[in-house]
Amino acid sequence: MINRPLILVTNDDGVQSKGISSLIRVLCPLGDVVVVAPDGGRSGMSSAISSKLPIWLNLLKKEEGLTVYSCSGTPVDCVKLAVNEILDRKPDILVSGINHGSNSSICVLYSGTMGAALEGTIFGIPSVGVSLTDHSSDADFSDVAKYAAVITSKVLDEGLPQGVCLNVNVPDVKLVKGIKVCRQAKGLWVKEFMKSKDALDNDIYWLTGYFQNEEPESEDTDEWALSHGYVSVVPTQIDMTAYEAVKNLKNWEVQTISEPSFLN
Amino acid sequence: MINRPLILVTNDDGVQSKGISSLIRVLCPLGDVVVVAPDGGRSGMSSAISSKLPIWLNLLKKEEGLTVYSCSGTPVDCVKLAVNEILDRKPDILVSGINHGSNSSICVLYSGTMGAALEGTIFGIPSVGVSLTDHSSDADFSDVAKYAAVITSKVLDEGLPQGVCLNVNVPDVKLVKGIKVCRQAKGLWVKEFMKSKDALDNDIYWLTGYFQNEEPESEDTDEWALSHGYVSVVPTQIDMTAYEAVKNLKNWEVQTISEPSFLN
Repeated sequence: MINRPLILVTNDDGVQSKGISSLIRVLCPLGDVVVVAPDGGRSGMSSAISSKLPIWLNLLKKEEGLTVYSCSGTPVDCVKLAVNEILDRKPDILVSGINHGSNSSICVLYSGTMGAALEGTIFGIPSVGVSLTDHSSDADFSDVAKYAAVITSKVLDEGLPQGVCLNVNVPDVKLVKGIKVCRQAKGLWVKEFMKSKDALDNDIYWLTGYFQNEEPESEDTDEWALSHGYVSVVPTQIDMTAYEAVKNLKNWEVQTISEPSFLN
Repeated sequence: MINRPLILVTNDDGVQSKGISSLIRVLCPLGDVVVVAPDGGRSGMSSAISSKLPIWLNLLKKEEGLTVYSCSGTPVDCVKLAVNEILDRKPDILVSGINHGSNSSICVLYSGTMGAALEGTIFGIPSVGVSLTDHSSDADFSDVAKYAAVITSKVLDEGLPQGVCLNVNVPDVKLVKGIKVCRQAKGLWVKEFMKSKDALDNDIYWLTGYFQNEEPESEDTDEWALSHGYVSVVPTQIDMTAYEAVKNLKNWEVQTISEPSFLN
């Protein structure tokens, strides 16, 4: 078949994870799949790049319709290598995931899954990050893979607005009720550290804690959708400008300043 | 003096860098400064967190008005540790930097400096990231430090809108013309890799390339301000929702879907 869609797949749990295998399985019928994914776990890597270290790339598999590389770098490195060095044309879509664990609300900022999707968006590739709200390595991905395939198919048909990708989260429930298009809920993590000791009796800190939804009653948020059994789809943009504030802070504009008095 | 402002300082170049030293020097007259910064370079770490590794914290200095810790984690880890484990109250401001190198346009997404500022914003701390468009380790920070002090003082007086921090970039020019409040320019990095070999003759890739401004004529962007000798101040928000797209994609909402035909 000529002109099958070119589908770039990556994730942040590593090329060996169950989530990406489930994703590859449902995407192969939709086009030619090229996987460039980290060679191990890169959870919480956000949009990090390997600015000081070299990156290794390994071809793991090349068969009709499916090519798989592992990469020693971050999820964003994977996307950059795919676009700059591996693919001979821009992919028709990038799908990142399926992540083991939720990337809703403020977690979009920490997420390597979404870091990769945002990177695809910078390159002008319609991009989707998909996550399941279950951290376990043997989570059941059958339902979320189905939704990932349907949304991928829709994005291939209709595209996405420039500068916008999708942050898709699927609740770990018996029967998903459907899809809600929503906004990122306001929230934060609290009680974030478990204090312990290393073998030399130094204090060490392990990141842990729990997420606190600051607006549990708002029905238009991803957190509400997920806690009510819906898939949340948050259109997410690479332009982080707070436009309202640009207007309101215009009076901060000054000409060249001299040494402020408190520095003298 | 009672009730001096509490100023949290961090960066992504490490506690030993010239940029953070310049910043500490100009902030000490403004309040009590607590520094929690990485123990080495963490450039390009974005909002990455140490999700799988423990974090070590070391008290380096404690004197009247200035406390300095180094941290083995990422810039965001530093902010989380400061808020959760070190400080006995919420800081009045977080200042991240001064970064060696620009964090304008799309680099806000990769920047550890801005990752820390965004993290402060999640905690409800008025936060500012400051960068100088000069990567060299011995850059001249005297001018940028002056602007950092003036902007910090202004934020301490007036606060910032909820969910919004400032991405401040200062051009490496002889005479800065003043401050422009602007939006994030559209752009991307191109020709991003230098290919080389490791000692075992494996291919390796080094991240490099150059930034391409996709709208050089737009006078309301940070890139325009910087290339015309102005300090760029971009109000930057933690809500990445593309609200226009939320409206336009509402027709994607469906009820529970059955197995799509292409998976059968």
